[in-house]
Amino acid sequence: MSTDLPVFKDVVDAHERIRKFVHKTPVLTSSGINKLFGSSLYFKCENFQKVGAFKFRGATNAVLSLTEEAARKGVGTHSSGNHAAALSLAARMKGIEAHIVMPHTAPEIKKVAVREYGGIITYCEPTLESRETTMEEVIARTGVTFVPSYDHFNIICGQGTATKELIEEIGELDIVMGPVGGGGLISGTAISTKGMIPPARVIAVEPIGADDAYRSFKTGKFVPSVNPQTMADGLLTSLGKLTFRIIMDKVDDIVTVSEDAIVAAMRMIWERMKIVVEPSGAVPFAAIIENKIDVTGKRVGLILSGGNVDLAKLPFK
Amino acid sequence: MSTDLPVFKDVVDAHERIRKFVHKTPVLTSSGINKLFGSSLYFKCENFQKVGAFKFRGATNAVLSLTEEAARKGVGTHSSGNHAAALSLAARMKGIEAHIVMPHTAPEIKKVAVREYGGIITYCEPTLESRETTMEEVIARTGVTFVPSYDHFNIICGQGTATKELIEEIGELDIVMGPVGGGGLISGTAISTKGMIPPARVIAVEPIGADDAYRSFKTGKFVPSVNPQTMADGLLTSLGKLTFRIIMDKVDDIVTVSEDAIVAAMRMIWERMKIVVEPSGAVPFAAIIENKIDVTGKRVGLILSGGNVDLAKLPFK
Repeated sequence: MSTDLPVFKDVVDAHERIRKFVHKTPVLTSSGINKLFGSSLYFKCENFQKVGAFKFRGATNAVLSLTEEAARKGVGTHSSGNHAAALSLAARMKGIEAHIVMPHTAPEIKKVAVREYGGIITYCEPTLESRETTMEEVIARTGVTFVPSYDHFNIICGQGTATKELIEEIGELDIVMGPVGGGGLISGTAISTKGMIPPARVIAVEPIGADDAYRSFKTGKFVPSVNPQTMADGLLTSLGKLTFRIIMDKVDDIVTVSEDAIVAAMRMIWERMKIVVEPSGAVPFAAIIENKIDVTGKRVGLILSGGNVDLAKLPFK
Repeated sequence: MSTDLPVFKDVVDAHERIRKFVHKTPVLTSSGINKLFGSSLYFKCENFQKVGAFKFRGATNAVLSLTEEAARKGVGTHSSGNHAAALSLAARMKGIEAHIVMPHTAPEIKKVAVREYGGIITYCEPTLESRETTMEEVIARTGVTFVPSYDHFNIICGQGTATKELIEEIGELDIVMGPVGGGGLISGTAISTKGMIPPARVIAVEPIGADDAYRSFKTGKFVPSVNPQTMADGLLTSLGKLTFRIIMDKVDDIVTVSEDAIVAAMRMIWERMKIVVEPSGAVPFAAIIENKIDVTGKRVGLILSGGNVDLAKLPFK
């Protein structure tokens, strides 16, 4: 691991490391949607990735980058989201333990997912302090390597492989768009895009109710996230220190979208493309629907980040 | 057109006729689902077909089989479902008119779909009698060729191309399963299966609340559908005369499934495979979930017939 900023060569190395273990997800298009917006939109469908989200790429890269000695002791993280499931499955494929710290208040469905992938859960109180101290206790007891969910060299490089596959399949693009929460995915997206097709613009999209990345980007100063509110639960996290530096260096713009636009984007993707995408995954397309970015006549790649939703709690009316 | 029963050669001809116009839909698998049932399930994803359902195959074959003279006068049907949208789009691609008779009480979303594909709607009262007399008036006025939604040689041959693609891609299968309503899809499915891999068993699956095909098959006598009740709205139709003969000849068994099993099948497909499938499309998988058919150790093809659902009225709790 390095604290240097990763470059495209690091994504290439990550891809060589993980490609046997991850799905090469399909790139889907919809002639109806393209007609509607007068452009060519290419959706990189990470909802079809193992565990239902791009997170499996980064987690697999982190696990496979461990020394054999470190690997034997396992890995750990605190997360109640897709990263916990992703790290659990990545560890199981390597034949090592994954210790997951999650609040005892986490939804049952999340606990089941982690257990199903073989993760060992240690419960904590639903506060950041409890998560961190419990994580420290687990590390002290087991010797696992801590794998954070986004602000980490190997995680970022793993996430960048989705965009690498997209560009290898589709070729030149005018714009590449991804959602931004902690920034791991958009950092990897930007590194691959600028490494492969430098003239293409990289646009990050963020829910307006969780716009710390937008404000950080526009002011050039790290603005922490305070009480974020959005249905895009994968984007509630605060930007990382490493990801902030990469975003300032390589992302061309950040735009924000409303909750209504996120629902409209989800609906159009579900209805027209017949695929299940989570709110976070619909956020880039929401920026097109809300006219935050002009795509007329352009070839645009969108990273559709995941498809894990609670079907009993959908936002459609 | 012929009143003889179609044979596999007719499906081959239909495929040559339509293949440039229809999507070759993907065959998807889920390692999680396969592990759960100890079998290899291959889902032929007609939810990704144009207009969101297999119906486009049959409609396109029917339109392209018209003489040039008949084609010039257009086509017509009475339907408020996927067939109306499918025939409208097939006609537009051929550059001819499609006249659609539908009850004025049909959901607005269905009317919009037909109009969007260029269909010309004539409204009628919501009774079978009104549909038929209105259709006759439209035919007398316009000279269009009537294209029924399932009980028709060319429709059946078109629907059979889905299974032909499935078997060409996947090879030998032990079982091929499809839903049965009017019987157009399962007839085509059976013709292709027995034509390409004769030892494979063909299983039709029907909602227990709309089990006229099941009762017809078990008694060998045509039992009309009376007051069918199921959320699988694509399967409310009564078996046809032609399709009944094909089913008696080529389908190995018909099993029924409960509404609960249909919801469970939909949920598992949406959650695990991240694709949107309508209740009718989930019906074959429901038979596996409800243990109506033993698939242990077997290679099984399932025709996932369509993906048109009203997102505001989903059955998940």
